[in-house]
Amino acid sequence: MAPLEAVDLIRRKRDGGKLDAAAIEALVGAYARDEVPDYQMSALLMAVFFRGLDAEETRALTKAMVDSGERLDLGDLGRPTVDKHSTGGVGDKVSLVLAPLLASLGAAVPQLSGRGLGHTGGTLDKLEAIKGFRSDLSAEEMRRVLREAGCVICAAGPSLAPADRRLYRLRDVTATVDCIPLIASSIMSKKIAEGTSCLVLDVKVGRGAFMAGEEDARRLAETMVALGTEHGVKTSALLTRMDEPLGRAVGNAVEVAESLETLAGKGPADLVEVTRALAEEMLRLAGLDLPRGEVAAALEDGRALERFSAMVRAQGGDPGADLPEAPFRRELAAGSSGYVARLDALAVGTAAWRLGAGRAKKEDDVSAAAGVLCLRKRGEKVEKGEPVLELRTEDEARFEGALGALAGAVDIRPDGEPARSRVIGVIRP
Amino acid sequence: MAPLEAVDLIRRKRDGGKLDAAAIEALVGAYARDEVPDYQMSALLMAVFFRGLDAEETRALTKAMVDSGERLDLGDLGRPTVDKHSTGGVGDKVSLVLAPLLASLGAAVPQLSGRGLGHTGGTLDKLEAIKGFRSDLSAEEMRRVLREAGCVICAAGPSLAPADRRLYRLRDVTATVDCIPLIASSIMSKKIAEGTSCLVLDVKVGRGAFMAGEEDARRLAETMVALGTEHGVKTSALLTRMDEPLGRAVGNAVEVAESLETLAGKGPADLVEVTRALAEEMLRLAGLDLPRGEVAAALEDGRALERFSAMVRAQGGDPGADLPEAPFRRELAAGSSGYVARLDALAVGTAAWRLGAGRAKKEDDVSAAAGVLCLRKRGEKVEKGEPVLELRTEDEARFEGALGALAGAVDIRPDGEPARSRVIGVIRP
Repeated sequence: MAPLEAVDLIRRKRDGGKLDAAAIEALVGAYARDEVPDYQMSALLMAVFFRGLDAEETRALTKAMVDSGERLDLGDLGRPTVDKHSTGGVGDKVSLVLAPLLASLGAAVPQLSGRGLGHTGGTLDKLEAIKGFRSDLSAEEMRRVLREAGCVICAAGPSLAPADRRLYRLRDVTATVDCIPLIASSIMSKKIAEGTSCLVLDVKVGRGAFMAGEEDARRLAETMVALGTEHGVKTSALLTRMDEPLGRAVGNAVEVAESLETLAGKGPADLVEVTRALAEEMLRLAGLDLPRGEVAAALEDGRALERFSAMVRAQGGDPGADLPEAPFRRELAAGSSGYVARLDALAVGTAAWRLGAGRAKKEDDVSAAAGVLCLRKRGEKVEKGEPVLELRTEDEARFEGALGALAGAVDIRPDGEPARSRVIGVIRP
Repeated sequence: MAPLEAVDLIRRKRDGGKLDAAAIEALVGAYARDEVPDYQMSALLMAVFFRGLDAEETRALTKAMVDSGERLDLGDLGRPTVDKHSTGGVGDKVSLVLAPLLASLGAAVPQLSGRGLGHTGGTLDKLEAIKGFRSDLSAEEMRRVLREAGCVICAAGPSLAPADRRLYRLRDVTATVDCIPLIASSIMSKKIAEGTSCLVLDVKVGRGAFMAGEEDARRLAETMVALGTEHGVKTSALLTRMDEPLGRAVGNAVEVAESLETLAGKGPADLVEVTRALAEEMLRLAGLDLPRGEVAAALEDGRALERFSAMVRAQGGDPGADLPEAPFRRELAAGSSGYVARLDALAVGTAAWRLGAGRAKKEDDVSAAAGVLCLRKRGEKVEKGEPVLELRTEDEARFEGALGALAGAVDIRPDGEPARSRVIGVIRP
């Protein structure tokens, strides 16, 4: 694509016009082949931030990103393939439970996941707290793990949607991440390319999520469901609350430990609720019509846990090894007696991040042992002076910044409020 | 500047916030030193396109661009320095007349000019139609010509506002040219760096100008007058009409020929009107208090023409050489009898451009001989079948495209309208 054609497309979008599908596909293809420079693409992305993309434009962008690489075919596994994607939340370890759970119920779960950046953490960082666990698998290794364990959680290889990979990196350094059509097409291009036939999206809403408002979250979910459906992937979405952390553990090793408890049928109520709701939607899409109670049974009778161990082993990890423990711990006590009325997810996520569980730049290492435990959550009773949060770190100097993030993060009121469901709604095509 | 700082500035502008002066200066300085990549700058420019820059931000940007290079000091010439800048119009050869005219009246005119891109043509392209004329002078050559001839018209060297040069190239390929604070700071950074102590801006309004609307043109003029004044340059602006071409000639050699006629006191009325109005404003700023009628006299008694010849000679040109003549000519005839009511500047500019007088890309050569002569202008009587325009080119195949641009460019009505002034208003600090 000639520079003058690219500048015409930028101008058209800048002035509120519509880009036709052929132009978008030509532009993204040329960008992936390095024929359109980053500086034209970033100007276009900023124009898209202000002007948006309509459904047709978003579809064309997604298709172009899928077409820039390989699209896996997992049709030879002999089982329905089903994946889940979360838009990211605090304490969101659902993937660690859901993938082996679905594998134990007859589905194959090819979960291509990411590393965390910022306060929400990443599934791969959590699993890598397990001794020996490898996230970077070749396409052949990924298939082998899927066959052996029924599920795999690994990094997306460079052959899947390479245009999205390049665009995402550019968006990250040009303040063009927070844009619904760009978020939707980025997520969906990777999920379509990975070859799953069914997909359930967990779109988080609230203070700890990227989409704080329900209206934006709903629009993102609808956009992604439409994109998946148009590309032949059976797709639906759950909107779930992310005002307080999911479960009690926020970090890496601490979230693995809580996932193991949940896989053994002893998970915290909110994590179990979200996991079950997603599992049931995944089974529905996959056409696996199981007896009522089977999801709960698989968590209680050890079937799901057994699949988790098989997956960890198949990816080089030792499921029996002790998880790393943080040498430094500090508690945050309740300032008054009563019931926890609010526990701010963003503050807790930021505290865990500052304790070492997350990274500020892509190149940073994360601490496996660092994190926050929520000893009391919303609706739970606490006496003045009793601990509400436990902070863990490998570097004592990090407590100060973490405690700073937690100022005003906990409200305690005299009266308890009834528990509320984390699941707000479901969006289907 | 670290990438994370740059992305914070982009985000702040994207969200409608204000960038402080120190941040803008650090960013532009880092960009000029190649420490901030083009892709971050183009995203910021697009955010600026949508959000604008306020007066303080525009001033800081201008200062940063001036500070990125050298600022000439012309205080040793012993004469007041005064320059003019036009925002670009069709048939706008005013600089060719004005610089020697002012030189003949006691000022020194250091006119750093540009090449044309698109339908408006460039002063340097016009002068280069003169055999031997050189536009690319060193700073030392520029001073020598100024001393010898009292005026110089040459290209801005790479040492003046290099950050603007780099930013302008980036804006050109990212659809971020049409933005008043960016236009104003780009023009003014070069004019401030060139070292003139007085500056009159000719801001064009109408179909053939970059600013079609008077309100935008006035805002651009006010912004530039404020920027010049803040940087110690006495600055004012005229708003002048650019609905029809200025004078009768549009092209390169044909505009030089018309400039020579004007310098000899025989110019077309509209060109003379604009030239005199600008000259009087320049004299006023320069504090040259001349007897009434002196401007007209300098055009009529050969003083201005003599300065033009001196300048051309000092820049290597031969003022006596014949100008290039186009081998192919074609006339466009009036479709009815009456008075010309409208002669569209944009259409005529585009036709001249397509005949070879302008360039589509920076690397293109221009044809010295190509152009359009307006044989009839607004208010003039014409009989059906008489020629209104004469098209000239060195390449016969170009007539078709040029004639295409002229469809609907001329309106003829039964009744003539009175002539109107080209000068709309003046803007002073």
